[in-house]
Amino acid sequence: MQELKDRIVKEGKVLPGNIIKVDGFLNHRIDTVLMDHIAEEFGKHFNMDEVTLLLTAEASGIALATVCAHHFGKPLVFAKKAKSDNIEGGLYRSDIFSYTYKKKVTLIAAKEWISSDDKILIIDDFMANGEAMRGLIDIVNSAGAELVGVGCAVEKGFQGGGDRLRAAGVNIKSLAIIDSCEPGNIVFRED
Amino acid sequence: MQELKDRIVKEGKVLPGNIIKVDGFLNHRIDTVLMDHIAEEFGKHFNMDEVTLLLTAEASGIALATVCAHHFGKPLVFAKKAKSDNIEGGLYRSDIFSYTYKKKVTLIAAKEWISSDDKILIIDDFMANGEAMRGLIDIVNSAGAELVGVGCAVEKGFQGGGDRLRAAGVNIKSLAIIDSCEPGNIVFRED
Repeated sequence: MQELKDRIVKEGKVLPGNIIKVDGFLNHRIDTVLMDHIAEEFGKHFNMDEVTLLLTAEASGIALATVCAHHFGKPLVFAKKAKSDNIEGGLYRSDIFSYTYKKKVTLIAAKEWISSDDKILIIDDFMANGEAMRGLIDIVNSAGAELVGVGCAVEKGFQGGGDRLRAAGVNIKSLAIIDSCEPGNIVFRED
Repeated sequence: MQELKDRIVKEGKVLPGNIIKVDGFLNHRIDTVLMDHIAEEFGKHFNMDEVTLLLTAEASGIALATVCAHHFGKPLVFAKKAKSDNIEGGLYRSDIFSYTYKKKVTLIAAKEWISSDDKILIIDDFMANGEAMRGLIDIVNSAGAELVGVGCAVEKGFQGGGDRLRAAGVNIKSLAIIDSCEPGNIVFRED
């Protein structure tokens, strides 16, 4: 998606450790107009008529997924990150490793809001190692629901998470795949 | 706001400890149509023409605030909850006490995205003791920005956070103020 790539090049900052900061429009300050264009783009790649539910993970996926849910008139569930050992029952859960916080995190979602009849599109702002995505797919499977696909705004292609999902046959669409980055030189994978 | 109150009565669950769960439409599963009606309602109470920026706190405020930002064509910043001691510079920060997690949490927002010229409307899904709100107002003040007002969907009136802000002269509008709750009997404050 050219508009997204242009914004990444223009406003993104490459930090040591292959970190790409796009917090001016995607995951701290939110540009909802761009989010809406991203939603439109996802609409070209997924059959939204069959989707019954969008799923994302807190916190930074919520803004984009909310605009997508609004755009397509679908409900959204965001999986929470459990912060206490005292988690109530009635939950789907998946343990993932958070590279951001360098520790295990448990993604949870109430069973009440995801049924085996659901056809789910997962939306996230960012994918690197794909741990959060793996956790979300876990939750879809635990619910016995159908995974329609995965829509991701920015994928760090060189960290392999997206390619592992492709190899596993997941219908994944990332709108900007970054294959390498250093200050002043962000290289995108060709569409 | 009658539509919101009706949803709380119909779908909300009162749990021990005066906890009101509205996670079927507000803060776990998201009904973006209702969120949009809430945005519309805020538009009656605040002069959106003068607002330059919406501000909320992760995680559960993001969905509602995103729909509001989209509705009014304004940028949104969500303050993050710092999870590590290793917080980079260039941030506004405010320490608050999280009653949910029973510990101190630091709200942070990048200085880059909030300027002293901003006229800010704070949006949140829920207010109880008002600690998160206090932290967000702190950030507005640290930035030297102007606080236009506070828009809150559900306020637990009996926990005093909203009334403390009213007493301090903050222009706050909560769309459903719950003055008492027990299973089967949720009492709203009159408008």
